[in-house]
Amino acid sequence: MVVAEDFFFPGLNKPGNTSNAVGSRVTAVNVNQIPGLNTLGISAVRIDYAPYGINPPHTHPRATEILVVVECTLYVGFVTSNPANKLFTKYLYPGDVFVFPEGLIHFQYNVGKTNACAFAGLSSQNPGVITIANSVFGSDPSINPDVLTKAFQVEKDVIDRLQAQF
Amino acid sequence: MVVAEDFFFPGLNKPGNTSNAVGSRVTAVNVNQIPGLNTLGISAVRIDYAPYGINPPHTHPRATEILVVVECTLYVGFVTSNPANKLFTKYLYPGDVFVFPEGLIHFQYNVGKTNACAFAGLSSQNPGVITIANSVFGSDPSINPDVLTKAFQVEKDVIDRLQAQF
Amino acid sequence: MVVAEDFFFPGLNKPGNTSNAVGSRVTAVNVNQIPGLNTLGISAVRIDYAPYGINPPHTHPRATEILVVVECTLYVGFVTSNPANKLFTKYLYPGDVFVFPEGLIHFQYNVGKTNACAFAGLSSQNPGVITIANSVFGSDPSINPDVLTKAFQVEKDVIDRLQAQF
Amino acid sequence: MVVAEDFFFPGLNKPGNTSNAVGSRVTAVNVNQIPGLNTLGISAVRIDYAPYGINPPHTHPRATEILVVVECTLYVGFVTSNPANKLFTKYLYPGDVFVFPEGLIHFQYNVGKTNACAFAGLSSQNPGVITIANSVFGSDPSINPDVLTKAFQVEKDVIDRLQAQF
Amino acid sequence: MVVAEDFFFPGLNKPGNTSNAVGSRVTAVNVNQIPGLNTLGISAVRIDYAPYGINPPHTHPRATEILVVVECTLYVGFVTSNPANKLFTKYLYPGDVFVFPEGLIHFQYNVGKTNACAFAGLSSQNPGVITIANSVFGSDPSINPDVLTKAFQVEKDVIDRLQAQF
Amino acid sequence: MVVAEDFFFPGLNKPGNTSNAVGSRVTAVNVNQIPGLNTLGISAVRIDYAPYGINPPHTHPRATEILVVVECTLYVGFVTSNPANKLFTKYLYPGDVFVFPEGLIHFQYNVGKTNACAFAGLSSQNPGVITIANSVFGSDPSINPDVLTKAFQVEKDVIDRLQAQF
Repeated sequence: MVVAEDFFFPGLNKPGNTSNAVGSRVTAVNVNQIPGLNTLGISAVRIDYAPYGINPPHTHPRATEILVVVECTLYVGFVTSNPANKLFTKYLYPGDVFVFPEGLIHFQYNVGKTNACAFAGLSSQNPGVITIANSVFGSDPSINPDVLTKAFQVEKDVIDRLQAQF
Repeated sequence: MVVAEDFFFPGLNKPGNTSNAVGSRVTAVNVNQIPGLNTLGISAVRIDYAPYGINPPHTHPRATEILVVVECTLYVGFVTSNPANKLFTKYLYPGDVFVFPEGLIHFQYNVGKTNACAFAGLSSQNPGVITIANSVFGSDPSINPDVLTKAFQVEKDVIDRLQAQF
Repeated sequence: MVVAEDFFFPGLNKPGNTSNAVGSRVTAVNVNQIPGLNTLGISAVRIDYAPYGINPPHTHPRATEILVVVECTLYVGFVTSNPANKLFTKYLYPGDVFVFPEGLIHFQYNVGKTNACAFAGLSSQNPGVITIANSVFGSDPSINPDVLTKAFQVEKDVIDRLQAQF
Repeated sequence: MVVAEDFFFPGLNKPGNTSNAVGSRVTAVNVNQIPGLNTLGISAVRIDYAPYGINPPHTHPRATEILVVVECTLYVGFVTSNPANKLFTKYLYPGDVFVFPEGLIHFQYNVGKTNACAFAGLSSQNPGVITIANSVFGSDPSINPDVLTKAFQVEKDVIDRLQAQF
Repeated sequence: MVVAEDFFFPGLNKPGNTSNAVGSRVTAVNVNQIPGLNTLGISAVRIDYAPYGINPPHTHPRATEILVVVECTLYVGFVTSNPANKLFTKYLYPGDVFVFPEGLIHFQYNVGKTNACAFAGLSSQNPGVITIANSVFGSDPSINPDVLTKAFQVEKDVIDRLQAQF
Repeated sequence: MVVAEDFFFPGLNKPGNTSNAVGSRVTAVNVNQIPGLNTLGISAVRIDYAPYGINPPHTHPRATEILVVVECTLYVGFVTSNPANKLFTKYLYPGDVFVFPEGLIHFQYNVGKTNACAFAGLSSQNPGVITIANSVFGSDPSINPDVLTKAFQVEKDVIDRLQAQF
């Protein structure tokens, strides 16, 4: 028995809590919050940023993202695939729209002195999020440090410091 | 030669002009505005509503819509397919999210005394919009009145009045 | 235990009963009638038309339609998306084939003095049908007349008459 | 400049010429005949059968088929994948509908003494047809007889006779 | 409770048993062997060939195949759709890669005096295999010989001999 | 004018040059090497590993990967999405098959004292590769160190050392 509430989720007007290490909070509205989204291929998020807060480099394994800035100034970017690894960046002001193509690493950085806020749509009812730092240095259990030492071409103590953070 | 601007569109912070018969304005940001959206399966819109303005009954032939209310109170609804034609409605307040499934007829109505505004994501880079009244009574050229008289089961003068509006 | 009957449906040689307000009848053969169609992305219909009967303006939210006229003369058409709302029409005679693209409003009108009949394929095992008049003026419950009055830009009495028909 | 003719094809009321070795003729209406079908995922065919004519075993590499019998009696069938190779068959009479799932080998046989006719929809604008006998024994150039001798586990003279037919 | 083993299958280093009529063996690794492949759209096979063994003409109803030769020399080919039925062939040596497009009839033939081996990827978690000879002449139950006699345009005794082999 | 060579690529029997910082080499065979793969949704790679070489943590933005180990012992793993960031690992021996789901970060590590080799299929004709270290610390131009310092929660000198490597 389907009802209107199956297509509804409240509260995206409330800022998320950004008191954390990166100074940002993503509030997701996907098929886990709205069961009526099943098979419909879309979802949404609200992102809040403290001053100088970042939404750290991450990918969505199954979705492109289209972001609209509501408040403040964001410095955003994404990096293309190998071998170019080209970085595209842009300063965004309220009302600016930017697209992060499916599966590419991207980030947002609140370069203003006040809180920032953005809304975004994602092209999947279950887009997934892979925060690079947490996935690489904070997985459960940890990735073998030999792998990371070689991948990042640094001394093991650097990898140790990185893994210790997550 | 791809550049960051290919993924960018400015100005969605500016209210659209709602001085028209229905009292609303949709500002679309799809592959026509952002060429980088090509093949990526998503787009966005800003919708503005004058007091008591409506976004009249319409469908998107190729997309589901997820809408976030920014300001004011909206009364929204969609109707399911034959034979049920069941109407699902909801009053939405700032921060509320609602989903309009692909291809179904839906509308929004600003029931507040002040301007309203919403953002929405759509699951296609080129979703299309079919405003029912304009498509049925305002096509170019007009649909044969015999078809419409029988379809809407009213006298021809009613169809004439409806066609005269568009 | 799959059997041949899971891919079978009989009786499409029998004319549908067109004794109704619009003078037409659609007999659908989709995944609800043929369970073997599941995931296979196609279905079929037979459409019968009394003299001067219409298959009223409608959309299929998830399918394109390809129609073959078997008997009589049909006047058919579809309307493109906003902002053009361009009407494409054609008189069809037995053996003529016409395509109604996914999600667009379309209709058929039997302009002959005898019964007409057509077969059509649809690009979904569950295409859905939205009859515009029934969805807009005959939903359960009714759409708020304020919305429809503004959408169709007519007096409330016209909307009342339209809603009273469904 | 799109016109209604881009969605139109005439003449499917005329029986195809069945004066050939198998006693059947398929008249196809796909994106090659109707350019407006591009990207729309559907097409149609008319199939005519002389008495005791067959539409020989074939596959559509990119489509499921839904067939409606118009005249006469057809004996139809399809074979499932390895390892079962299960044959599903059915006698079909006018008005019967049958589905041939994507990529499976299937056939129709007019077991009546008069001409037969059927219409079918296919779930691709460009479904393709692979007639097994022609593809295996009549390709250009011929498949190496050693391959066919071993595949069909018969003497080379049998393969020679088969290849000589096409 | 998902575990690493849900994404794992062992033993593809062991040659398959080619002591059979065609002198080849396909070892499949798809969603039936690796449940974690569900919805992920890919699978793999190892193919072993005795000297002069063939992987007989077959199709994959839901997948394209990309094959890498590991040992020995293979003569491979595929046939395009009607009406051209064009045969594309190639002698492949270790390290050569060849593509068999979705749904087309194709084969491999070990033309060397030693065992051959290849690996292949397929673009579906459940690609299906239709071995032409088995599907046409060895289905359960048999296809009506009248159909096959006409399809292959030979005397009934040839069809009898072919059906007797499977 | 299509020819067999459009579906062919040679030389995957030759080990790639692993004399580089990570001790591995991926030789890709996708639509850039084989034009006939266009629209067919699959590609392949050969991966070579020096002793203790790694294929460093990376994602494919548009493909799942199925890998077959040919020689030596590989320690492989992938990390699931937020919030679990669960690491699934496995030691793989010759003939073992493992699946890396679309868009997830994964790696392989040759834990043996000799060269290792694997083949893999990918579920896209153009899967893309994002090597995490290169994309994050070696993009062109560099990502703002403030973003990375906060994302990885380390002192700026660590980020400087990491960026200096790429």
